[in-house]
Amino acid sequence: MEALLSNVSRACPFLARTPVPALRKLSTVPVRTTSGKPTTALFATAQQCPVMSKAIAVQSKKNGARSMHSSSVCPYAAVVDGISAVPPRAQPPTFLNPQSASAAPRCPVQHKQARTEKHAPVQGATKPFDYESFYQHELDKKHKDKSYRYFNNINRLAQLFPTAHTGTGEHVTVWCSNDYLGMSKHPVVVDSMKATLDKYGAGAGGTRNIAGNAQLHLSLEQELASLHRKPAALVFSSCFVANDATLSTLAGKMPGCVIFSDSSNHASMIQGIRHSGAQKKIFRHNDVAHLESLLQQVDINAPKIIAFESVYSMCGSIGPIKEIIALAKKYNAITFLDEVHAVGMYGATGGGVAEYIDAMDDIDIITGTLGKAYGVVGGYIAGSSPLVDMIRSYAPGFIFTTSLPPAIVSGALTSIRYLKESQKERIGQQLNTRALKSRLGEIGIPVVPNPSHIVPVLVGDAETAKSVSDELLYKYKIYVQSINYPTVSVGEERLRITPTPGHHPELMDVLVDALDTIWHERGLKMEKDWEAVGGRAGVGNGCKVEQLVVDQDLGLVEPQRLAAVA
Amino acid sequence: MEALLSNVSRACPFLARTPVPALRKLSTVPVRTTSGKPTTALFATAQQCPVMSKAIAVQSKKNGARSMHSSSVCPYAAVVDGISAVPPRAQPPTFLNPQSASAAPRCPVQHKQARTEKHAPVQGATKPFDYESFYQHELDKKHKDKSYRYFNNINRLAQLFPTAHTGTGEHVTVWCSNDYLGMSKHPVVVDSMKATLDKYGAGAGGTRNIAGNAQLHLSLEQELASLHRKPAALVFSSCFVANDATLSTLAGKMPGCVIFSDSSNHASMIQGIRHSGAQKKIFRHNDVAHLESLLQQVDINAPKIIAFESVYSMCGSIGPIKEIIALAKKYNAITFLDEVHAVGMYGATGGGVAEYIDAMDDIDIITGTLGKAYGVVGGYIAGSSPLVDMIRSYAPGFIFTTSLPPAIVSGALTSIRYLKESQKERIGQQLNTRALKSRLGEIGIPVVPNPSHIVPVLVGDAETAKSVSDELLYKYKIYVQSINYPTVSVGEERLRITPTPGHHPELMDVLVDALDTIWHERGLKMEKDWEAVGGRAGVGNGCKVEQLVVDQDLGLVEPQRLAAVA
Repeated sequence: MEALLSNVSRACPFLARTPVPALRKLSTVPVRTTSGKPTTALFATAQQCPVMSKAIAVQSKKNGARSMHSSSVCPYAAVVDGISAVPPRAQPPTFLNPQSASAAPRCPVQHKQARTEKHAPVQGATKPFDYESFYQHELDKKHKDKSYRYFNNINRLAQLFPTAHTGTGEHVTVWCSNDYLGMSKHPVVVDSMKATLDKYGAGAGGTRNIAGNAQLHLSLEQELASLHRKPAALVFSSCFVANDATLSTLAGKMPGCVIFSDSSNHASMIQGIRHSGAQKKIFRHNDVAHLESLLQQVDINAPKIIAFESVYSMCGSIGPIKEIIALAKKYNAITFLDEVHAVGMYGATGGGVAEYIDAMDDIDIITGTLGKAYGVVGGYIAGSSPLVDMIRSYAPGFIFTTSLPPAIVSGALTSIRYLKESQKERIGQQLNTRALKSRLGEIGIPVVPNPSHIVPVLVGDAETAKSVSDELLYKYKIYVQSINYPTVSVGEERLRITPTPGHHPELMDVLVDALDTIWHERGLKMEKDWEAVGGRAGVGNGCKVEQLVVDQDLGLVEPQRLAAVA
Repeated sequence: MEALLSNVSRACPFLARTPVPALRKLSTVPVRTTSGKPTTALFATAQQCPVMSKAIAVQSKKNGARSMHSSSVCPYAAVVDGISAVPPRAQPPTFLNPQSASAAPRCPVQHKQARTEKHAPVQGATKPFDYESFYQHELDKKHKDKSYRYFNNINRLAQLFPTAHTGTGEHVTVWCSNDYLGMSKHPVVVDSMKATLDKYGAGAGGTRNIAGNAQLHLSLEQELASLHRKPAALVFSSCFVANDATLSTLAGKMPGCVIFSDSSNHASMIQGIRHSGAQKKIFRHNDVAHLESLLQQVDINAPKIIAFESVYSMCGSIGPIKEIIALAKKYNAITFLDEVHAVGMYGATGGGVAEYIDAMDDIDIITGTLGKAYGVVGGYIAGSSPLVDMIRSYAPGFIFTTSLPPAIVSGALTSIRYLKESQKERIGQQLNTRALKSRLGEIGIPVVPNPSHIVPVLVGDAETAKSVSDELLYKYKIYVQSINYPTVSVGEERLRITPTPGHHPELMDVLVDALDTIWHERGLKMEKDWEAVGGRAGVGNGCKVEQLVVDQDLGLVEPQRLAAVA
């Protein structure tokens, strides 16, 4: 099917000359057919094609008027659907977004737009509420501020890690996944999952309370408790759910609780804090002086939670864990540390940054994921037995959901146990991170300085970041997703690169050369240019940041060896 | 290991004569050792054992004072940990629950309780907040009102469906899982997952936006859209997340939105509604007259959502879908229908109750799960393209979480496609449901009457329901979880039985005989006894309920054939 799609896209005179980004846009532009029916520019285009128009007519008859989903009739459309993930609209798009319509420069067929008036007011409604128009209006806002997300079709190939195939079957190198250590393709993980599938089947069959609580789940929680040297742990569908459910339940139950939250905290924590209904105080990112000033404003005897992360994944900064622990002790607060991007990655057994800096025993609640360095999916908390048992007993997001499939639990358990022993993945990842940061630094590409394994390359503009990401994908066969507002601040848009132990020097050559070429061809700001305008997002402000993991732990007896390793 | 545990538990004079429920209770009763250290009654017991005390001493030295987790030192304790899921408390349990302590009748060693005072006041704190005591206090409340949940260790064996092994390796028949059609062990599902593991590895490697969006995810969403005849669908980590994220985002965004919610709605919908911040109006379960009276109270032009379910899983009732659709049209509301317990189960292609009664096209938003009849895990919504795209673009619970692993997606996709074609699982399930309801009815066991595939057996008391469930498990090797408050109302506690196509007549004989024996031995209320006291939870009120799925659809040309099939 993939080969067919690839051949089709090469054979078709329209697809062959139309860049994928333009195709993608066409697939989202609402137009009307000559008969007045709502559709998309892409589908309308297909209807002009002598080959496709017949196929559409036949399929439309089959479907009746029920569905106009283009990929059901058109191999061309399947190509585009594959890269777009935005199905054409079968519901009448009452209002058009003129900006989107005009942004389809190569659309070979222009249709008259049926209606072009502005979106009707939705507040203080004096006429029936138009639901579909409201949804479209909300989407238009995303298009206008460039925060609308287009998903790339990326199929990561276990046997060719870190290679993936796209929707057309082309191979690309993935440089931005959170499978940081390549554990998702590790034979010990995959084999344990296959064996568990044979033994225990596909799904858990119920909630933890009803038929979905197996020895594997209990063993995983014991392993996680042991990993973080806590008495207990609890597994959730994801760490989003773990953070949301734990913070909302815990802070919601403790009377008069105040939450102190780092301003860069992940959406899951922000959501949990909001849902708790507790008072929150946001401290400036990693600013312990600001945190202390906020702590001083609150009754010393009131329950208090300080919620923060170890590795902040979009900038790579690391939380001041020991300083925050000291403040928590001073002000009788408890600490809630999200180690999502650090578990498996740092510490002698993969316990995270808190293990690496020997602060783990002083953290009250640690949360982590099974879906990044451990390569599977799921999330968890670890803490005291009464804390964990209370969340187990009260959090709806834990109680009322099907538990993780046995094979997922088995894969995660195997991965954790493996990474408790094996250092080579962590070391390989750190060495490749150092090498990439060093090489990009040498040619002046602006890397946001940070002590962790994240390599954020500053672009500084949403449309350019997206466009560079597209060029990397389609021209250089390199997949690095652009990170735009609201995930990062406006003006700090970036490419977020995540080297793994599997990104060998030849792959790094291709990436570095591609970025070098693109930066020069497009005249993008180099590190020195950011320095000239006073710096941005930490780039060009003259600040040097050391890597957290020291040379000795990477087997680099002398720092000079680093270049040779790269 | 399982065989070892089983042998150990038989060889030990203490374990051999102590019933599992008593062991479980011992594992949660906080006591202090002779040296004053906090532990559990079970652990303290183990310390009195000539074999175990030495092992504990050795292991304690290894661990330092760090962890007192009993299963790390004791094969006996592992047996109990396995059935309990409540790790002994290593944190000091400052306050004791005298009720729990006295409820351990066979504990061979009595320790002086170090402290017996009541829990300190936590509101209006005038001394430092004691977090651990607070957690314990919240747990004590659960113990007191009998809503504390003990998880059974149930390992469902794919090759011996519906058999599972417990933590000690004993085989039991599972009669309460939500793997309604046994798809979790179906070779087409398991094989597709294994093949996908080989090809694409264990985890997705990122969010849908970053590296975690593959063709499989897109195909699954197309398949789900097609299943419900909607233009689009969106997959989430679970249907808990789907309901929560969709309702909170949708109702939170629409200005002045009012949500009308069935009083029996699932916790995920209740949470989503609460998180939306929108005004909510709760209508009595399945009471369309009450719903209409509430609709009349709201501005006709305000946005309105009616949220309800097709099959209510704890009582088996079915929502009045067509009547609610009519009201939605009359009052310009949209409908949000949770088909979690119905997808795969009803309708010619498994589209749910709305498909079966031909109402699917008039529902605005359908949500479902991949973790029950489809046998895997995950949840989804289906609806108009702008609606789905808006949720995709705005819901943090969708955006900021690792996407489902490729193998999970592949298994779900295979299962949906299989159940679109195959009727035999649905028919087998319905026939077994009818047979079981009929047989229990014949001997007077009180089944809550309902038209669906759920067989709720009324007990009417929390402690008894739990005790009957324990007796079924340990004496009859039948696993049926008891359902207590808050999942059902106080006084309506029940056993929730879910027959599958795999529960053949011999298994049903064992279940029916066991319930018959237990009901008579314990003198539990039969259907006629409930009738004598005016009925409860629908039992004994003289109301006859027909099954939703009619005879013709089960190949029963004449209703008389039913008994023969059973």
